[in-house]
Amino acid sequence: MTTIAILGATGYTAVELIKILLRHPQAEITALTSREETRSVGAVHQSLAGRLELSMKNLTPQEIARCAECVFCCLPHTASAKVVPELLQSGAKVIDLGADYRLDSAETFETWYGEKHPDPARLGKVPYGLPELFRNQIIGANLVANPGCYPTSAILPLVPLLRGHSPRLPGAGLIEPTDIIIDSKSGVSGAGRTPKQSTLYPECNESISAYSIGTHRHAPEIEQILSTGGGQSAKIIFTPHLTPMDRGILTVTYSKPAKPATQDELMTVLRDFYRNEPFVHVVDHLPATKDVSGTNFVHLTVRVTGGRVLTVSAIDNLVKGASGTAVQNFNLMFGYPETTALI
Amino acid sequence: MTTIAILGATGYTAVELIKILLRHPQAEITALTSREETRSVGAVHQSLAGRLELSMKNLTPQEIARCAECVFCCLPHTASAKVVPELLQSGAKVIDLGADYRLDSAETFETWYGEKHPDPARLGKVPYGLPELFRNQIIGANLVANPGCYPTSAILPLVPLLRGHSPRLPGAGLIEPTDIIIDSKSGVSGAGRTPKQSTLYPECNESISAYSIGTHRHAPEIEQILSTGGGQSAKIIFTPHLTPMDRGILTVTYSKPAKPATQDELMTVLRDFYRNEPFVHVVDHLPATKDVSGTNFVHLTVRVTGGRVLTVSAIDNLVKGASGTAVQNFNLMFGYPETTALI
Amino acid sequence: MTTIAILGATGYTAVELIKILLRHPQAEITALTSREETRSVGAVHQSLAGRLELSMKNLTPQEIARCAECVFCCLPHTASAKVVPELLQSGAKVIDLGADYRLDSAETFETWYGEKHPDPARLGKVPYGLPELFRNQIIGANLVANPGCYPTSAILPLVPLLRGHSPRLPGAGLIEPTDIIIDSKSGVSGAGRTPKQSTLYPECNESISAYSIGTHRHAPEIEQILSTGGGQSAKIIFTPHLTPMDRGILTVTYSKPAKPATQDELMTVLRDFYRNEPFVHVVDHLPATKDVSGTNFVHLTVRVTGGRVLTVSAIDNLVKGASGTAVQNFNLMFGYPETTALI
Amino acid sequence: MTTIAILGATGYTAVELIKILLRHPQAEITALTSREETRSVGAVHQSLAGRLELSMKNLTPQEIARCAECVFCCLPHTASAKVVPELLQSGAKVIDLGADYRLDSAETFETWYGEKHPDPARLGKVPYGLPELFRNQIIGANLVANPGCYPTSAILPLVPLLRGHSPRLPGAGLIEPTDIIIDSKSGVSGAGRTPKQSTLYPECNESISAYSIGTHRHAPEIEQILSTGGGQSAKIIFTPHLTPMDRGILTVTYSKPAKPATQDELMTVLRDFYRNEPFVHVVDHLPATKDVSGTNFVHLTVRVTGGRVLTVSAIDNLVKGASGTAVQNFNLMFGYPETTALI
Repeated sequence: MTTIAILGATGYTAVELIKILLRHPQAEITALTSREETRSVGAVHQSLAGRLELSMKNLTPQEIARCAECVFCCLPHTASAKVVPELLQSGAKVIDLGADYRLDSAETFETWYGEKHPDPARLGKVPYGLPELFRNQIIGANLVANPGCYPTSAILPLVPLLRGHSPRLPGAGLIEPTDIIIDSKSGVSGAGRTPKQSTLYPECNESISAYSIGTHRHAPEIEQILSTGGGQSAKIIFTPHLTPMDRGILTVTYSKPAKPATQDELMTVLRDFYRNEPFVHVVDHLPATKDVSGTNFVHLTVRVTGGRVLTVSAIDNLVKGASGTAVQNFNLMFGYPETTALI
Repeated sequence: MTTIAILGATGYTAVELIKILLRHPQAEITALTSREETRSVGAVHQSLAGRLELSMKNLTPQEIARCAECVFCCLPHTASAKVVPELLQSGAKVIDLGADYRLDSAETFETWYGEKHPDPARLGKVPYGLPELFRNQIIGANLVANPGCYPTSAILPLVPLLRGHSPRLPGAGLIEPTDIIIDSKSGVSGAGRTPKQSTLYPECNESISAYSIGTHRHAPEIEQILSTGGGQSAKIIFTPHLTPMDRGILTVTYSKPAKPATQDELMTVLRDFYRNEPFVHVVDHLPATKDVSGTNFVHLTVRVTGGRVLTVSAIDNLVKGASGTAVQNFNLMFGYPETTALI
Repeated sequence: MTTIAILGATGYTAVELIKILLRHPQAEITALTSREETRSVGAVHQSLAGRLELSMKNLTPQEIARCAECVFCCLPHTASAKVVPELLQSGAKVIDLGADYRLDSAETFETWYGEKHPDPARLGKVPYGLPELFRNQIIGANLVANPGCYPTSAILPLVPLLRGHSPRLPGAGLIEPTDIIIDSKSGVSGAGRTPKQSTLYPECNESISAYSIGTHRHAPEIEQILSTGGGQSAKIIFTPHLTPMDRGILTVTYSKPAKPATQDELMTVLRDFYRNEPFVHVVDHLPATKDVSGTNFVHLTVRVTGGRVLTVSAIDNLVKGASGTAVQNFNLMFGYPETTALI
Repeated sequence: MTTIAILGATGYTAVELIKILLRHPQAEITALTSREETRSVGAVHQSLAGRLELSMKNLTPQEIARCAECVFCCLPHTASAKVVPELLQSGAKVIDLGADYRLDSAETFETWYGEKHPDPARLGKVPYGLPELFRNQIIGANLVANPGCYPTSAILPLVPLLRGHSPRLPGAGLIEPTDIIIDSKSGVSGAGRTPKQSTLYPECNESISAYSIGTHRHAPEIEQILSTGGGQSAKIIFTPHLTPMDRGILTVTYSKPAKPATQDELMTVLRDFYRNEPFVHVVDHLPATKDVSGTNFVHLTVRVTGGRVLTVSAIDNLVKGASGTAVQNFNLMFGYPETTALI
């Protein structure tokens, strides 16, 4: 049994995490923190009424580490990095669902997040918590940077193609790494639970819109992992969309073939790459976000048309894009079977 | 041509009103007010981009009356009643889309709205702006209290039955006025455009819930108009619901027959009552809110089952439940054909 | 380990059932039947791609019983009752998610379903599979009639009040059994997966409508169980609504107090009744369907207003309203802990 | 006054067309045809209850031409081309909302639609009914090919850039015509009103998916008009998506700059191109489909990022993407002010 604290327990990521952990036979949630909220978790999240008897508290890192062997941080950027050092020093293991430890460079962080990084020395040494690519590093880690939702949806279909080789033409790389267009559509829960006019029901319903073209903070994260995971420096154009649904991300990528390969060959590359992955399903059809809604699964496929390679992938932004992968990392870090609580 | 000011122009009611008035050949919008917003109307409401060149301003009643012969108030309660006296004195006619002049009694107002009424002397003298029931009073009025959305949906099907007589049994009243259950389902736009957690997309989508049982402010308004319009003191139980859709109200009422009447006889009573009304359609089928979405129409019907009389009515809460009826009142008050801009 | 067949595996109930059973450590799905479909389950239900390797087959009762100890029937009415006798005779236990064994009387069945019952001798002897009311009968049964979705949502809040006694006034019955109004709102998945114009997305989205007033087949089922479960012959008026959401039922009931009781007293009656039930949460707030979406939980509460007793309950129509309760029954019938695979 | 027949009056395009025409002071609908439906229009489309007294009929071209000066065809492909010759010969003008007369080549038609074209001689001579590009040809035409919904959303932002010249670099063409990616997201009404499992509410709701990658019939239409309208032979990759909303298309295009131009310069090109167009608004912000829902407006903008030129455009697929443009064409063909019934 592992004791668990969740920091920043009022949002959508946290409630999803709690629900998964309630199904985990070896997880015991012992603390939920919030700076402002002091009500019971069942009052803050009505879907948890009667399922967990804990109230939100404003705790210090020491108090947290005293009651939890594992800490999940669901905090705004820079808030995690302000408490993580103390948590680690106190002996807790930490899974950060925020952005603080994803980028390798403090300078890049400052450029995109507009603030100095509070814990720059650790950057570049924290495993990126995508088990499908970095499982071995995660297993022994005390701190893991849980991936962003959009990055998860884009990295998983692209990395095998960036790395792969065609049987007919040797040498790595089936797509060009510097001309990748990523067109992603996300449900509204990705925008968080803080009241904003732009995410009111009557603003989002019956409407789709693109946002943050060229300025979304997940772009440098995607480029970094495509580069380290794919083996060549990657450049992307990233267009996120707000879609009238609660959850789900559908990502279509457009890239140039680096060498000739048929659609069947590319499908084989994907299937081989993910053959043993319990949560990645390479499918023949074009996946829909509903196919993976509420699950930790990824459905992905590839198409060759008009001289371009297209990938299509679907995830649940709150599960595989956040809390599901976080529990997958938890399982790896604490020696539980990787799929526990996630099927 | 009539010049028009809209007070409180940042909300959903106001944007709907502007769109209707842009189609009105005799209406010229000359002022839009807001206490805080100073941007152009096309920036505040992107759907108006390129359609109206006006910026929001914080204007005094005198400034308003100087540029507008008709003032539509889309303001929170008590805010209208603080400016209406001056507006009327300055010669403007006023249509109040808020609740300030709907109730006849300042005491009832204070009970339900928790504040002293700023203009109590006028209460009881302002016509209730439901043309189907009070057209003659509206025509000559300088001030009209535009009805609430739920009340419109409940009053229109019930009043003919409260007033009506069965051919087989003389005497008025086909349903008992004191045991009426009103179960209404509204789209989320009815909750307004101010950011609140409870109306965020991920809170409302894929969910229906009842709210304010026994405490909704439209209850006394419905009882008052059922009593004055129906001719007998009425008592209701009112259950509003938040429904995952932008707009629309479906209201089902359950009442006891006051005398025996078949479903066909009750249908005939409704058809006769609304025979000449351009916006009320008595239909044989059970109406859906979509049937009237974006229109000023009301679809309604009646059923007799299990010893009860049920009515079902559908309106668009922002049009027939607010801005459409407001323009209907405007047309009556200024001598334009009643359906102008509303078909 | 128990082997399982699912008859009629192409619909929404079946896919939900399969997902729950995939999480059940003691359940092994060995057969999926369909009269017309022969594709793999992952092709018929894309959300199951990669999760279950079985194809749909058209099997005889003997073939089914040979490979399954437990058979779940997700079949249209009369189709179950045509195969159940043989399945039972072959030694399988059966959970019927359809309507064939819910009503006690073949005559009532014929009145409401328009066809002769194929297995009338069994009617009245099959336990109604609502464990919260009939657990003991279910435990020893070979055949269980899984409740309808609307009935589950209406029966659970009403039975304790029909049965309950006020501490201030002895004698059973806190509400009148013969004047109960049930106003229910269901998601569209309740209408099934067969293509119909009325359940196309553009017909249902952004729209709510009542249907089948006075004629819905769940009405006699509700009356029967309220009568047997509540102890007095019950009469209801039932108004179902089609609500723009996938899943969820919100039911509001209106009844007359049979004796004076405060809201607090009624809340206590409900809390006492469901104190040890793992899936029923009596909540203070007004529940939303989203609070229980994707779960086997029921959230319910009671209000006293305007001389009436109102109950409000929320379930997921596909889980607690169908497949979740079916697995609860399976657990009881086969001796597994009742909550297995359901938390 | 112009008499009007609508062929194929049971679908979503037809009902939208009827609603627009009911607001048109010079249009009189005299016939509605259907091969199978004979009910009144208010029964087929409940939203028209009480608004139009006509029944659907199965009429011959001669019967149609006898009662209508203008015929709108809302028919499946090849069905229009089978009746248009006779309609024209009988003296009617025709606006075809289907695909039969959009492509210039019978061979291309056969390749993409899988059937021989019934009226090949006319192909290449029928104006493409996008008034913003082909107004002069439309004005004098007897037959107009109303554009597809996706093509409208893609052509309008791209043609000015394909044609335009940068002030700093002379010569036409600001983007490369042969490497254009078009990623479009459409509401479900675009899939029509015929019952299909894939467009049932529970299949589409809470889900987004791509479909018909590389095979959508609107691709050759887009390429043809980009080529003729833009002046250079165009090649595109087109990815349509089914989005959980009734109506609206958001199209993002990705193309390569043909010569250096800043975002401001490209915005100026768009603004200059559409300066006098009543229905095209070039906006600074990223438009949402809701901004133009229910209207004939197009909102569009351009971005330069990562070495690519992106355009974003929003239309209502049923209005500007079908029936609104059809009425715009009607107004031009019959000499009415172009915006009549469309503001």
